[in-house]
Amino acid sequence: MNLVIKNAKIASESGVFAGDIGIRDGKIAAISQFGTLKGEEEIDASGLIAMPGVIDAHTHFELPIMDSCTADDFESGSKACCAGGVTTFIDFVTQTKGHSLFDDLTERMAMAENKVYVDYSLHMGITDFNQESFQAIPEIVKIGIPSFKIFMAYSKEGWMASEGDLVEVMEIVRDNGGVMGVHAENQSIIDKHTYDLISQGKTSYKYHPKSRPHYSEIEALRRILYLAELTRSPLHIFHLTTGEGARLVSEARGKGIQVTAETCPHYLVLDESVYSSEKGYLYVCCPPIRFRSDSEVIWRGLEIGSVQSIATDHCSFSVAQKKEFCDDFTQIPRGLPGCETLLSTIYTRGVKKGRISLERMVSVLSANPARIFGLYPNKGSLNIGADADIAIFDPNEEFIMSPEVTHMKAGYTPFDGKRTFGSVKYTISRGEVIYDNGVFTKEPGRGKFIQRFRNPEFF
Amino acid sequence: MNLVIKNAKIASESGVFAGDIGIRDGKIAAISQFGTLKGEEEIDASGLIAMPGVIDAHTHFELPIMDSCTADDFESGSKACCAGGVTTFIDFVTQTKGHSLFDDLTERMAMAENKVYVDYSLHMGITDFNQESFQAIPEIVKIGIPSFKIFMAYSKEGWMASEGDLVEVMEIVRDNGGVMGVHAENQSIIDKHTYDLISQGKTSYKYHPKSRPHYSEIEALRRILYLAELTRSPLHIFHLTTGEGARLVSEARGKGIQVTAETCPHYLVLDESVYSSEKGYLYVCCPPIRFRSDSEVIWRGLEIGSVQSIATDHCSFSVAQKKEFCDDFTQIPRGLPGCETLLSTIYTRGVKKGRISLERMVSVLSANPARIFGLYPNKGSLNIGADADIAIFDPNEEFIMSPEVTHMKAGYTPFDGKRTFGSVKYTISRGEVIYDNGVFTKEPGRGKFIQRFRNPEFF
Amino acid sequence: MNLVIKNAKIASESGVFAGDIGIRDGKIAAISQFGTLKGEEEIDASGLIAMPGVIDAHTHFELPIMDSCTADDFESGSKACCAGGVTTFIDFVTQTKGHSLFDDLTERMAMAENKVYVDYSLHMGITDFNQESFQAIPEIVKIGIPSFKIFMAYSKEGWMASEGDLVEVMEIVRDNGGVMGVHAENQSIIDKHTYDLISQGKTSYKYHPKSRPHYSEIEALRRILYLAELTRSPLHIFHLTTGEGARLVSEARGKGIQVTAETCPHYLVLDESVYSSEKGYLYVCCPPIRFRSDSEVIWRGLEIGSVQSIATDHCSFSVAQKKEFCDDFTQIPRGLPGCETLLSTIYTRGVKKGRISLERMVSVLSANPARIFGLYPNKGSLNIGADADIAIFDPNEEFIMSPEVTHMKAGYTPFDGKRTFGSVKYTISRGEVIYDNGVFTKEPGRGKFIQRFRNPEFF
Amino acid sequence: MNLVIKNAKIASESGVFAGDIGIRDGKIAAISQFGTLKGEEEIDASGLIAMPGVIDAHTHFELPIMDSCTADDFESGSKACCAGGVTTFIDFVTQTKGHSLFDDLTERMAMAENKVYVDYSLHMGITDFNQESFQAIPEIVKIGIPSFKIFMAYSKEGWMASEGDLVEVMEIVRDNGGVMGVHAENQSIIDKHTYDLISQGKTSYKYHPKSRPHYSEIEALRRILYLAELTRSPLHIFHLTTGEGARLVSEARGKGIQVTAETCPHYLVLDESVYSSEKGYLYVCCPPIRFRSDSEVIWRGLEIGSVQSIATDHCSFSVAQKKEFCDDFTQIPRGLPGCETLLSTIYTRGVKKGRISLERMVSVLSANPARIFGLYPNKGSLNIGADADIAIFDPNEEFIMSPEVTHMKAGYTPFDGKRTFGSVKYTISRGEVIYDNGVFTKEPGRGKFIQRFRNPEFF
Repeated sequence: MNLVIKNAKIASESGVFAGDIGIRDGKIAAISQFGTLKGEEEIDASGLIAMPGVIDAHTHFELPIMDSCTADDFESGSKACCAGGVTTFIDFVTQTKGHSLFDDLTERMAMAENKVYVDYSLHMGITDFNQESFQAIPEIVKIGIPSFKIFMAYSKEGWMASEGDLVEVMEIVRDNGGVMGVHAENQSIIDKHTYDLISQGKTSYKYHPKSRPHYSEIEALRRILYLAELTRSPLHIFHLTTGEGARLVSEARGKGIQVTAETCPHYLVLDESVYSSEKGYLYVCCPPIRFRSDSEVIWRGLEIGSVQSIATDHCSFSVAQKKEFCDDFTQIPRGLPGCETLLSTIYTRGVKKGRISLERMVSVLSANPARIFGLYPNKGSLNIGADADIAIFDPNEEFIMSPEVTHMKAGYTPFDGKRTFGSVKYTISRGEVIYDNGVFTKEPGRGKFIQRFRNPEFF
Repeated sequence: MNLVIKNAKIASESGVFAGDIGIRDGKIAAISQFGTLKGEEEIDASGLIAMPGVIDAHTHFELPIMDSCTADDFESGSKACCAGGVTTFIDFVTQTKGHSLFDDLTERMAMAENKVYVDYSLHMGITDFNQESFQAIPEIVKIGIPSFKIFMAYSKEGWMASEGDLVEVMEIVRDNGGVMGVHAENQSIIDKHTYDLISQGKTSYKYHPKSRPHYSEIEALRRILYLAELTRSPLHIFHLTTGEGARLVSEARGKGIQVTAETCPHYLVLDESVYSSEKGYLYVCCPPIRFRSDSEVIWRGLEIGSVQSIATDHCSFSVAQKKEFCDDFTQIPRGLPGCETLLSTIYTRGVKKGRISLERMVSVLSANPARIFGLYPNKGSLNIGADADIAIFDPNEEFIMSPEVTHMKAGYTPFDGKRTFGSVKYTISRGEVIYDNGVFTKEPGRGKFIQRFRNPEFF
Repeated sequence: MNLVIKNAKIASESGVFAGDIGIRDGKIAAISQFGTLKGEEEIDASGLIAMPGVIDAHTHFELPIMDSCTADDFESGSKACCAGGVTTFIDFVTQTKGHSLFDDLTERMAMAENKVYVDYSLHMGITDFNQESFQAIPEIVKIGIPSFKIFMAYSKEGWMASEGDLVEVMEIVRDNGGVMGVHAENQSIIDKHTYDLISQGKTSYKYHPKSRPHYSEIEALRRILYLAELTRSPLHIFHLTTGEGARLVSEARGKGIQVTAETCPHYLVLDESVYSSEKGYLYVCCPPIRFRSDSEVIWRGLEIGSVQSIATDHCSFSVAQKKEFCDDFTQIPRGLPGCETLLSTIYTRGVKKGRISLERMVSVLSANPARIFGLYPNKGSLNIGADADIAIFDPNEEFIMSPEVTHMKAGYTPFDGKRTFGSVKYTISRGEVIYDNGVFTKEPGRGKFIQRFRNPEFF
Repeated sequence: MNLVIKNAKIASESGVFAGDIGIRDGKIAAISQFGTLKGEEEIDASGLIAMPGVIDAHTHFELPIMDSCTADDFESGSKACCAGGVTTFIDFVTQTKGHSLFDDLTERMAMAENKVYVDYSLHMGITDFNQESFQAIPEIVKIGIPSFKIFMAYSKEGWMASEGDLVEVMEIVRDNGGVMGVHAENQSIIDKHTYDLISQGKTSYKYHPKSRPHYSEIEALRRILYLAELTRSPLHIFHLTTGEGARLVSEARGKGIQVTAETCPHYLVLDESVYSSEKGYLYVCCPPIRFRSDSEVIWRGLEIGSVQSIATDHCSFSVAQKKEFCDDFTQIPRGLPGCETLLSTIYTRGVKKGRISLERMVSVLSANPARIFGLYPNKGSLNIGADADIAIFDPNEEFIMSPEVTHMKAGYTPFDGKRTFGSVKYTISRGEVIYDNGVFTKEPGRGKFIQRFRNPEFF
């Protein structure tokens, strides 16, 4: 074997057991007990947990904003992934109005190419709902990008899809083996509440959550779930935040609708009281952080499988960028850093708190995102023959979350000050140790663009 | 290693891949590629599929009937299991009215002890709904029998539970880590239709399905699902037959009700036209075989996970026993043989027909029954450390199903004459080969009673 | 005209207006303004409200209990009706096990014949679910009794219908223009809770409501509504008590199920705190009085039409009869007096409190019971040509409810001490004044048995 | 009495009976049997049915289109009403973008004032969703226009309301005693299908229904019903066409949502096959005419009360106007004539065919529209004291529908050639005979604008 991980507590979806993992030619080649595996290189994982590398299926690295950009470019972002046990991330290429999908894709891949520490892919965001875009979809799927992001919000930027557009895209992705993901918020409801708040002079960041009330998400979800039922098309909900939304998704699945949902750590761990704090502007994201009653329902959904995945929606604006507009919630850049803190936060608040099992954490952080987006089983599992993408973390070592202990560049994390467990010790990508107890052992550009192909079988 | 299975196509819930399986001390000790595993004994599984041993969680061996008994006793029944890749079966002990649960259990275990070829357990059937029975439940769970069978039908024999009884049992099993399984048919509806048919002189076996119409199952399901919602208790539906029932279970799961369902091969592969055939009496079982439209919905439920398991309800009355009463559907012994044909039938009609994936077959035949009934992950998986219970079958060899090619003693199978694939070549139980290409290599009595403990985490 | 009611505020379902009512030959012959109507006899109804005579479609007069009988026989009961503006009551004939429906009916009519002050009919209660009973149903409908009462509770007395029985009856009444009414409680759930309470020594009347929890009604309702959906048969729910039940009925109607529901004044006006009072045993009835949250939902149902009628379930056990068993809730005779207080209580708590309009009160007290049970439009309306059955009451005169101001013989009313409006001044039956400001102007025996025929059009 | 209608069969919501109607000072003053009423003027209505004058709550008279106008202006339109037994119509004033609601209203009223034969009102159509419009709503309600029309379709003309707009309007009308009516179609879905059809060269009128598929209505209904549930605001659905829509409305009412629905005669009597006929362009309306299965469900809804009203959506483009664009379905003026044929068509196809009772016809043509829109009980009933608005028709005289037998000016009716019953003989408005066996006895301008005020009680 090229590399053997010895004495690990191995966590898979189907069980947790002690054993060694043998890796050869970048693939999982053996899983074994009794120490019979020998490797050219060996890692002693005593006391540590080894799981399939985390897949953060929702990042926004190097996102342009006005003349500038988010704090994390593909390099620092993917480096943070590496330190957080994330072995694959899926970022976005958002169509520039008037451009072809292919041009935008090429450009975005070029931006990432020499910078990425870990493997990656891109979701294709469509914003021009015309025949040219529609006809490109089958081609985009064929080259390994089967997932599309459509906005039910953001009319102002002109990104918003109408129901006619949504049906069109859903029918095409259904017929071509793709999946449509949506940002499900109703913009006109947001506009109304924004208008009302501004009219009353309520422009502080404190009012951000009031401008995007629960029902702006729920209405959009009801609408898109109906269209999914009608078209019998697979659907993915990005960043689900409401308990009622989780209930709707569960109910839809109960009806046989092919829908999956993602939530984010900040929706699970924080609640709306963050917006009352002095630095509340730092927590401005979209959709906003909701109530404790919402997160409890979503945790339960993760436990019983009616919410299938967690990703970060990593979008790291700096403290300065956020603070600048703290008196005008309509201008505050919306987004939070998170790719590096994903595993440890979910381990701490999910597994250690007893809300989900370790097996379930593997499902929602690794296996399910891989299945939904067409990476499975090559990624997201420890199956023999799969890519040897592995995260190894210490479940017992405790630390206090802070920007200092992470590599993300926003200057804060949403979880600062929280006692955290699950520190990543080793990250292995295609059989190579790329992160070893705080040391990045490989260069940027090592990561590869991964072609994805969805299994037509329903998730 | 004590035993190595080489060159198999290894099928697990999470994927299918080529590799070798190493077994030591009766446990799965390694899974590996590249042929590095060496065993004292080796099986060349080239061209064969190895999967976790099938768990038939619903058999009725050696069932007394009048002065006689079903054709298969624990010996012939478990031998047939062995030949069919079933490494664990769960039979029933049904409380005799007036007896303590413990006495009946002891007696039933004694009946099985020296005869079983493979491992087994028993569901505890409760028929006396009194304080003595209720108080015994926690004890029964503690000794490793967490699953109870309650009848919503069969008032005549006095087995039927009222809603008050059901709630009582559900609350006790919920609080003690058990699960209540139900036979969900409404007896009074059956009685009404039976009466009506008899009044019209319609007593032939042909009228059996008319005496137990779809809604006799559906009404019972609606009722028990409501009680499960109310008590927040885990519930298992035995032998689901209707498409509407599958929809109700799916919808209930969408609401967060902890319900699982089992269907049987005959409900999936046959349809009500069997009762129009000359030997239609052979197919009399309870609930009856339904319409093609029902089986299509249930197959779909298996595919998307809203129906979780398949078991056989094996209850082998001989051709003579069934024929004797063919003119009186109320007297025909109800039940079909099936434990030996389970794997091959589902492989042929499910996987080969493209209705479910091989991974899903592992779920519904092995992993899920193990999870539901507290055998997981020691049984039902190929996890490192799990019992080395393995079924190895040839996916390509074709044969015609007939009583001659099986070991069950009913003198017929419900699938006679059907082209079948998936012939079992080896059955391995706790690391020992117990069936080798038609040869039974171990003696009866080798099988063990297995204590079961449910994971409190929701299925 | 024989009789003219002058200057009344006339209340109908379709509006309230000032006018005179002209009566000739026992029928409404004219409704007019401007005082042009002249009568042989005239009533000056200035300041009073005239409405169609109330129909109390649920009374139990002269109900045998042990060696005795309820306090109100047909004479005192119908006299109380008369004083309360009730011009028609529908009592019950309950089949004695083993008897023919016709014999029991004849006997019960004989019991009432010479005693009744007002018109009446009977619902036919079936308790023997055999072919003889079933075959009698069409005949019973033909002779003018289209409504049947079936018990989903009371197994002990052997009255309980199974689902098979229910389906049988529903199909027959559907095909013959009848309606099946049910007492919807699940007896086995009641038995379980009764057993549990007794085991804990909780036998006082205080525990009566705990022995019949909300879900004992809700489960029964869900079951019968499913059967009504299945058989497409009209269904009437007697004495609905739970808010969830009202929701279920409304939802069922939304689905097109032909279901109507009745509630009773005590479920609307009182709440479960009555059982904590010193004389709580007086309030023991079945189903028990529920929570304020239940009555609020039912009031709302009455307002929007999803609950259609109010009747009293008048069953007047004396204070002594109830007190005797106050330490054993299983023995306390269950039932409350109410026929005389119906109009004034609903006027006071419904109309005066603004919960329902006067028009709606006419619907739920007069027109709807008449429609549901086949008296309409001859009774229950002020249509030209209809029976001149009229209640005339004073909406402004206030009095304190007490047994002294009523004619019922239980020795108490459930509303004792409550400020009440809506005192009845005149009761007119088929054009004759039978109650005139406290004076009963006609003899018992004047009332007639009224044949009823349902309009096949859905209610 | 000023006028007495003698010997009529009087039809009201609550019953049908023989009698005379006495009218004084323009109001219903008496209803009586036995011929005691004497009038200055008398009509012998032997063999005829008298009912409350029909209220056509949905007309578009004198609707500008390009440089021209619809065929029926307020004069010919209201004259046709008069001949059809319609005693009140409610037309629309649609806000011109940029105008104040008050200006448009004044202008529209001026257009009608001297032309109308019968009483009328206007719904206020809002198209500018800004603060000025919102602030005008309470004023508009106060001056007697409590009903607003909002378009969920027609984005092109800029009329379409967003969900934010809808919520805003719903909250305002709810708080001010109004009701919001919607045209529920999803424009973007229509646009998509229109685009697809045009791309395929399918521009003929035959494709009109395909451009507005069922789900374009259903999606809009689901959306608006959710918002109505959320805001607890009264909602009215104009021109419901789909069976699924009727089911949704019924279900919503079952949940307590305050929603009412209107359908139109052409959706009840015709089916999509009209678009295959040679003159199919004449039937182009919006939403389009659907399937027979839809109309059956809607008829059933009318029968059981889950669809509450019928209006005509009268919009009479001439044969020439429609034919001109018959090769371009996007240009064909959409609308059908109907106000004059309303009563006779519904009587023929509804009552005579046994689908609804005469009482129910009174509800859906007169009483319910009056209730929903605030005319009740002054109009829509024959209550004593109500406006003497009465339609008297012959239920037995048969005629063949054609433009020649009507006064509408489109040159065709959608029901041409159909055998029809229910010819109107007299129309009475506020006590005056305005139509007498084919003769118009009063001048245009006699009709009045009627202030409307909704009863806050839920319909």
